Amino acid sequence: MKGLRLHNYWRSSASWRVRLTLHLKGVPFEYVAVHLLKDGGQQNSDAYRSVNPMRTVPTLEWMEADGTERRLSQSLAIVELLQERFPTPSVFPEDSYLRARARMMAEYVNSGMQPLQNLSVLQRIKSELKGDDKAWGAYWNARGLEALETMVQPTAGRFCVGDTVSLADVCLVPQLYGARRFALDLSPYPTLLRIEAACAEHPAFQAAHPDRQPDAAPA
Amino acid sequence: MKGLRLHNYWRSSASWRVRLTLHLKGVPFEYVAVHLLKDGGQQNSDAYRSVNPMRTVPTLEWMEADGTERRLSQSLAIVELLQERFPTPSVFPEDSYLRARARMMAEYVNSGMQPLQNLSVLQRIKSELKGDDKAWGAYWNARGLEALETMVQPTAGRFCVGDTVSLADVCLVPQLYGARRFALDLSPYPTLLRIEAACAEHPAFQAAHPDRQPDAAPA
Repeated sequence: MKGLRLHNYWRSSASWRVRLTLHLKGVPFEYVAVHLLKDGGQQNSDAYRSVNPMRTVPTLEWMEADGTERRLSQSLAIVELLQERFPTPSVFPEDSYLRARARMMAEYVNSGMQPLQNLSVLQRIKSELKGDDKAWGAYWNARGLEALETMVQPTAGRFCVGDTVSLADVCLVPQLYGARRFALDLSPYPTLLRIEAACAEHPAFQAAHPDRQPDAAPA
Repeated sequence: MKGLRLHNYWRSSASWRVRLTLHLKGVPFEYVAVHLLKDGGQQNSDAYRSVNPMRTVPTLEWMEADGTERRLSQSLAIVELLQERFPTPSVFPEDSYLRARARMMAEYVNSGMQPLQNLSVLQRIKSELKGDDKAWGAYWNARGLEALETMVQPTAGRFCVGDTVSLADVCLVPQLYGARRFALDLSPYPTLLRIEAACAEHPAFQAAHPDRQPDAAPA
């Protein structure tokens, strides 16, 4: 696996998960910015649709040892592949049940929270249904974080599963950043905030933060 | 892993994925019905919240060899665990890249389609936003199936990835069933329909079908 190129967007949480996994594993990659708002959304361009028919970020491109060019989308599928190709340091707990719990928390963020408040959904809530997109996003984040705060209790150490960074932290940190964009009060989730603070001290989490990316445009 | 109990609902597509994986692997389990509509949704009861704070189905319960009782939620995390504990027959392609493609298609259904049209979201579209929940569900299914039809082309054989059933088929079949509930015209997706027909001939797909479950109440 060489010549890795990551099509991503600084503030997309799914992009962030993959970027973070690459940084955690120390795998170098080229950053290709796809602006989700500019030009009606660059992910909707014909050029990007040929890279990824789902029109989502991130997409990882690379070359195999035999020269074959490959592409893959869906953040958790990419993380699983990176784990198989670059096993150390691992982002999966050693113990089978703890590994399953890490995947459970990751999937809960990935399928139970993030999709309900991503850009294309918020746009449709606002434009088609004339709904309050901020209230919609806040509702699903609050509901999800309440469940996550309970879910993390049996395994929490310094991080979501014990004292080692795992896939669960990789998904949690971008989601908390997203929740703040809906002006959500996060004080009911002290365990999640404590874990987030521990992650913030980790060099890979610092390097992968949205504000540090080349296409960042903080308000 | 013994004494498996699956808390699930006949028509929930996430429940169906786990049920199907158990049938594909020939693992016996007890079926515990959680009715998502009766009693204001049995998943919202205190009893079920103590089983699963996310209030989602499915949840798998089992006992480890040493007597420890375990619980796990999130369909794809459960499928990954079942694959690790009961490796044959496998629901993951042998080849690393094809395995990643199977996970990509599964995640696209799991996070890009199903969450946007699940029961709790449709209820909120209707009750809070006074929106047309059927039109909402149809929109995301049509958009998703269009992408899936393109995505499956490079690998499709009898099934989504070659001629062996994988995780991708496990996610596709319940999603197509769900799409029909929104009265969607599926003729633009001939490859997906052909794969669905091949799956319908497989005994495990037959055994896991919603209409065959103890809590089924077909209209």
